[in-house]
Amino acid sequence: MGLKQQLLFQKEAFILENGATLQPVEIGYETYGQLNADKSNAILLLHALTGTAHAAKHHEADTPGWWDDYIGPGKALDTDRFFVICPNVFGGCSGSTGPSSINPKTGIPYRLSFPGFSVKDIVRVQYELIKTLHISKLKAVIGGSMGGMQATEWAICYSDHVNSVINIASPLAASPDAIGFNLIQRMAILNDPDFNDGNYIAQPEGGLATARMVGMMTYRTSELFSKRFERFTVAESSKSAFSKEHFQIESYLQYQGDSFVERFDANSYLYLTKAIDLFDVIRSQESEAPPYSHIKIPYLLIGITSDQLFRISDLRRDFELLKAAGVPVTYHEIDSEYGHDAFLVHSEVIKFAPILTEFLLPTEKIAH
Amino acid sequence: MGLKQQLLFQKEAFILENGATLQPVEIGYETYGQLNADKSNAILLLHALTGTAHAAKHHEADTPGWWDDYIGPGKALDTDRFFVICPNVFGGCSGSTGPSSINPKTGIPYRLSFPGFSVKDIVRVQYELIKTLHISKLKAVIGGSMGGMQATEWAICYSDHVNSVINIASPLAASPDAIGFNLIQRMAILNDPDFNDGNYIAQPEGGLATARMVGMMTYRTSELFSKRFERFTVAESSKSAFSKEHFQIESYLQYQGDSFVERFDANSYLYLTKAIDLFDVIRSQESEAPPYSHIKIPYLLIGITSDQLFRISDLRRDFELLKAAGVPVTYHEIDSEYGHDAFLVHSEVIKFAPILTEFLLPTEKIAH
Repeated sequence: MGLKQQLLFQKEAFILENGATLQPVEIGYETYGQLNADKSNAILLLHALTGTAHAAKHHEADTPGWWDDYIGPGKALDTDRFFVICPNVFGGCSGSTGPSSINPKTGIPYRLSFPGFSVKDIVRVQYELIKTLHISKLKAVIGGSMGGMQATEWAICYSDHVNSVINIASPLAASPDAIGFNLIQRMAILNDPDFNDGNYIAQPEGGLATARMVGMMTYRTSELFSKRFERFTVAESSKSAFSKEHFQIESYLQYQGDSFVERFDANSYLYLTKAIDLFDVIRSQESEAPPYSHIKIPYLLIGITSDQLFRISDLRRDFELLKAAGVPVTYHEIDSEYGHDAFLVHSEVIKFAPILTEFLLPTEKIAH
Repeated sequence: MGLKQQLLFQKEAFILENGATLQPVEIGYETYGQLNADKSNAILLLHALTGTAHAAKHHEADTPGWWDDYIGPGKALDTDRFFVICPNVFGGCSGSTGPSSINPKTGIPYRLSFPGFSVKDIVRVQYELIKTLHISKLKAVIGGSMGGMQATEWAICYSDHVNSVINIASPLAASPDAIGFNLIQRMAILNDPDFNDGNYIAQPEGGLATARMVGMMTYRTSELFSKRFERFTVAESSKSAFSKEHFQIESYLQYQGDSFVERFDANSYLYLTKAIDLFDVIRSQESEAPPYSHIKIPYLLIGITSDQLFRISDLRRDFELLKAAGVPVTYHEIDSEYGHDAFLVHSEVIKFAPILTEFLLPTEKIAH
């Protein structure tokens, strides 16, 4: 029921965009629902930066997934109708080959000898996985944040192999602002006393926690923090020399940082944030048309007005670009005080789910 | 002409808000213009977190100050009329007693044995300085950002000793959002391998640079970064294993971080950011009226619509609070793509200067 793993590129090496090679590549994934006889009901679901293949519970006693609200009988990704495949991202650390994987040539983890990779590389590995499952055409590819960037690459690179794509809260190119915050997060990790050029024994805890805390600031909103934490202080006093007072927002962020260290590999974090920075399907090579203009399938773009990471102004620009290029794009904006993470928040399901359901339905009707 | 220094609390110790004592306290300050015979033309100017007493050039060949655009003959702070006093902040590292000062009892720097202090403590030291200059009443106190918080404390604590106060871009209480970003900056410093519990020999460079980079993200705006840097890359390739590409926004931030290390003490940064976090003149003790309601003098509040550090929504709330409490408050909002730092940017002078001039003029007329 849980994590499945698939070896890819066993006979021939995976050649990455930058020319580096890797062999083999393993991908961890989980599935929900049943693949139908003609293999036409598969949806590929792609997680955000720190997500995993565990998108939903497989049974009541199972640990919660990151999209339980959307996956199940009668839900937006209705498991009575769809077969949902959620892979762990290539370069990640939860079942797929990444910097913490053992390099078969050396017998030790790749760490910083892992090749730099792009969102397109991530997607090319996913396509190999889909091939091994003998699925020639996906009903849809759906992703949020970094998963949305992957969904966009699917729409560009594999439009013959997917009916439609849903991109939640990701732009067609990472903004300088987002790149800046990612750089700061990598700096915090690289500067940790335990980082040791990536050859750490235990995680570089302080640096990775700090990185996560920076991330959290961009995933939520100042409005939400103001409403939730105000200027409340916590009972236990701070140990810092400069002040004994400690605010709830500080406890919250530190808890987020500390718990992240237990579940995410620091080297993976470096590579994945850089892949996000490099994502850009607006810029074209010389006189060629920009990559996004090659999207020929229905493309649903959902922006979140309060998004502090991927600003709504960028998503509005992207909608205009797509429309002008003749892409069959549908655009929705969600008002939410939760910011970027709204698509992962239980109370906001009601805002997203109907849009997903409506977008997925017509294709479903045509297919029958 | 340059930095003057004044010893304070030589006979009796300075008793801080938290009960700690310090003796003596030295304050570095610079002045512009001439104090008139009846000592009625003095303006106290208070710098932001990383500013210094050097607010303006004293002569053509002098190094630029942080407010050259506003200080000089015919400018908003007209040195033909006003005597401008700009002290380095208590707890800072540019001429005033702070964590890097020598503790006379031990012969070594205080470092983390320096007492925790508040914005009110900073202001109480400034009041002592004004007394030693035999100025019984200031024409105005003006400050931006952390300096604005100090200006507000002046309006509350010393309204008999100042005619009017100008607060640029600071709220009546630090928001959870601002506290979160400050916490992250302190984390980056505390986690630096060279920090050594504050007893560093050389500065904790990586951590302090990272802190500055986080600060820069909140001082400017995503719009500005998008316009200035787009997704341009720099000629020299990155040395990082995860990617050879390096964006201009990254070079910019790293330059800002690296140059900051040369001019600011890491321990001072810890104490000052915490003082900002603790600033709150909205919360009152039990049944007492909130501190801000005690402001009885003309109070000019200037908000910047695009401010990412101290949000315009908070400044609007503060204006309403002040108005409702009967404070003689004037409120202006500045539209600027520069965000929080707009009041320090040359091209934006035209937006701020006329407001300052108009606000300072009537008092001037009455005084004559």
